[in-house]
Amino acid sequence: MINVTVWNENRHEQINEAVRKVYPEGIHGTIQSFLADDFQVRTATLDEPEYGLSDEVLNSTDVLIWWGHVAHDEVSDEVVQKVKERVLNGMGLIVLHSGHFSKIFKTLMGTSCDLKWREAGEKERIWVIDPSHPIASGLGEYFELEHEEMYGEHFDIPVPDELVFTSWFEGGEVFRSGVTYRRGNGKIFYFRPGHETFPTYYNKDVQKVIANAVKWAAPVERERPVYGNAKPLEHLTIS
Amino acid sequence: MINVTVWNENRHEQINEAVRKVYPEGIHGTIQSFLADDFQVRTATLDEPEYGLSDEVLNSTDVLIWWGHVAHDEVSDEVVQKVKERVLNGMGLIVLHSGHFSKIFKTLMGTSCDLKWREAGEKERIWVIDPSHPIASGLGEYFELEHEEMYGEHFDIPVPDELVFTSWFEGGEVFRSGVTYRRGNGKIFYFRPGHETFPTYYNKDVQKVIANAVKWAAPVERERPVYGNAKPLEHLTIS
Amino acid sequence: MINVTVWNENRHEQINEAVRKVYPEGIHGTIQSFLADDFQVRTATLDEPEYGLSDEVLNSTDVLIWWGHVAHDEVSDEVVQKVKERVLNGMGLIVLHSGHFSKIFKTLMGTSCDLKWREAGEKERIWVIDPSHPIASGLGEYFELEHEEMYGEHFDIPVPDELVFTSWFEGGEVFRSGVTYRRGNGKIFYFRPGHETFPTYYNKDVQKVIANAVKWAAPVERERPVYGNAKPLEHLTIS
Amino acid sequence: MINVTVWNENRHEQINEAVRKVYPEGIHGTIQSFLADDFQVRTATLDEPEYGLSDEVLNSTDVLIWWGHVAHDEVSDEVVQKVKERVLNGMGLIVLHSGHFSKIFKTLMGTSCDLKWREAGEKERIWVIDPSHPIASGLGEYFELEHEEMYGEHFDIPVPDELVFTSWFEGGEVFRSGVTYRRGNGKIFYFRPGHETFPTYYNKDVQKVIANAVKWAAPVERERPVYGNAKPLEHLTIS
Repeated sequence: MINVTVWNENRHEQINEAVRKVYPEGIHGTIQSFLADDFQVRTATLDEPEYGLSDEVLNSTDVLIWWGHVAHDEVSDEVVQKVKERVLNGMGLIVLHSGHFSKIFKTLMGTSCDLKWREAGEKERIWVIDPSHPIASGLGEYFELEHEEMYGEHFDIPVPDELVFTSWFEGGEVFRSGVTYRRGNGKIFYFRPGHETFPTYYNKDVQKVIANAVKWAAPVERERPVYGNAKPLEHLTIS
Repeated sequence: MINVTVWNENRHEQINEAVRKVYPEGIHGTIQSFLADDFQVRTATLDEPEYGLSDEVLNSTDVLIWWGHVAHDEVSDEVVQKVKERVLNGMGLIVLHSGHFSKIFKTLMGTSCDLKWREAGEKERIWVIDPSHPIASGLGEYFELEHEEMYGEHFDIPVPDELVFTSWFEGGEVFRSGVTYRRGNGKIFYFRPGHETFPTYYNKDVQKVIANAVKWAAPVERERPVYGNAKPLEHLTIS
Repeated sequence: MINVTVWNENRHEQINEAVRKVYPEGIHGTIQSFLADDFQVRTATLDEPEYGLSDEVLNSTDVLIWWGHVAHDEVSDEVVQKVKERVLNGMGLIVLHSGHFSKIFKTLMGTSCDLKWREAGEKERIWVIDPSHPIASGLGEYFELEHEEMYGEHFDIPVPDELVFTSWFEGGEVFRSGVTYRRGNGKIFYFRPGHETFPTYYNKDVQKVIANAVKWAAPVERERPVYGNAKPLEHLTIS
Repeated sequence: MINVTVWNENRHEQINEAVRKVYPEGIHGTIQSFLADDFQVRTATLDEPEYGLSDEVLNSTDVLIWWGHVAHDEVSDEVVQKVKERVLNGMGLIVLHSGHFSKIFKTLMGTSCDLKWREAGEKERIWVIDPSHPIASGLGEYFELEHEEMYGEHFDIPVPDELVFTSWFEGGEVFRSGVTYRRGNGKIFYFRPGHETFPTYYNKDVQKVIANAVKWAAPVERERPVYGNAKPLEHLTIS
């Protein structure tokens, strides 16, 4: 069974009544709930020791889900480096919404990860661009979120390895809202929706996408390649 | 359980004693054997009615494996069109070795699919280029085939969606020997090795790759998108 | 100087007064006009001998621009095959708007090239997705067409090698409206806008995109690779 | 005219007689020489003030070429950050050989950039994988370097946006030796050859590749996209 750890900054929930009302168990709690039938799911939050990301937790995590927003800087560079190493060693990583500005996402992407945004609660329609992709399994041609924060292009990310979803926004923007990357032995999925004041993570299609992504991002069974000085595999004829 | 159909031209086996000695049950029989533990596997060959590819067979096939060489032209354009439709509707397709020149592969690629080749029985070393890819699951950094036909670049294919393997050949060439493509709802994997006079399909790593590819290429559960004239989803304000 | 041939079906212009009013010299005439300052530009149309695409014309064309709609089937398979060969040999190809269903585009793509469409004259906003791409040179973050036909996802094309533009439509759809492909030695650019009843090809940004694309698609100076049987480049040690 | 700055660590040349013999003007001097006919070329080295990379130099550089090996760590994080910003703003970057481990390349890639290596002076044959790419302009199907350091897969880089070259090594390895990436408004080309003890940068094909890459990587004329809070472009109907 795939071991999932849902990491959440968990700050909005503590200071904002409106958010707490939508997510009384925290965003992490809601995500844990809908994944619990199919996966072994733990949660971890910023205010726990080692941010809840001890070596033991990381080493036993197959897929890490990441939600953060106002406290990206409070995550130490050291733990970011450890998470990155785990990804390069094969751990899957699913970065949600405002996690686009998390240290872990930015360091794995190598770009600013900046974008346009607007908190107007407008309509978002998420179109499936790659109908053959397992992350789109079970979805219709598109699904809608009546009220969401807008994220718009240009999204300053590397060219995605795979473009699964593109969003249409009522206010006139588009956005690559579901993109995948490979880094070392690990797989990464960024998924746009999930502003803290909207009940996005209760949406059945959003839940389906995240569950599909967990299966897709689970590590492939293999050792990390060997790097460094290498003996020739063939006889060299250098004079 | 995934339904696999192994299609083989099955001509070398009938006219060439050397090939029959290596593959007494035909190349299709050997492939069926090593897949039979994990999948529901049928075979189909050129000389059967409708080339063994009736609508009933095609419609109940999740992943089609294709081996052909000297008789590509004997497969009718009509059946090629039917196979293509099935791929666009979601059926996986695994094209092996000399199948690079099959009508079905060429029509799905849109290029000549030409390459360099040499039948000298030289050494091939197949390197894993994408260690995160499920098709590379369970493999080491590379595997070797002591005696194989050489295929060399330039391989006139579209830029692959994913490059999984690259071959080194003793005679000085390289080749993109494991590549994936998406076409409509379907996934395609081309895998280079498998000259008819060598026991390549008995190699455990080759078998692992093909079994991995079957799992990877299996259809995603979804309807094909709707095309054609579409009503607006939003109110239009055109004057 | 780059030699451009603008091919147009030129049928709407002959039978539809509204189209003739917008494009009195034909769509090809308008495109020729705005390219003429920077390139050597000819036109060719369906009703000319050999559709205006003799060997002499094709062999002296660096970049071919293609507009067609109601008469795709009138272009013979033979001339489509010749154009395809020229692309594989290095000629650039720019396919416009309804050319998505042309034989030449479909045969080079290998998919149905189908899409959603609606002739309501709604607003289209074309966003730059790849700001580093030469085809986007000199453009702002987006440009708008007040009245255009809608094309919507899913667009059944192979995964583009490069995604340059994505369109937002007033009616709620999105579309990958500027995409590139490489086929053999040749480069292909598909560009969405250009319905025959709208003055799209007079738009300065649309003109800029097409001119940029001509420069981008111009052939690279080189021979086509050699294919077929190949002598070893290294000494073989086969026993 | 394109402004090129050739940055070289320039340490081997000072401490190793063998290197000085091959590159009496330094690797940067040799690269400057063969580019000087076609471009405006400056050099910059590690031991100059600000490593030769003042704001004035960076801001007037269209394409930066980077060679480093033993002193990657001596380049300050601050200057690396400035170079990265310039790339995201459009400056082209060409990273050569052992520059795969430079801070600037690693931070733009987000991976370890590790690889296999061997200093045996064996034969490398560099095959053109993408014959349509401008960086391959004027080259044959392959070119050879009689004596080079080996770099072998797995090369721990993100999936390249474009794979231009793949190397065959006498000792049995393969390597993606010419790869491109886009980051923000900027273009990046990594090119493998160039060990300091071999006369690689005097090779005419190597010189052609680097000159081609300069042209390819030159900035596109455009402003960087606007990020941050954005007003709606359409009327919002939120209740």
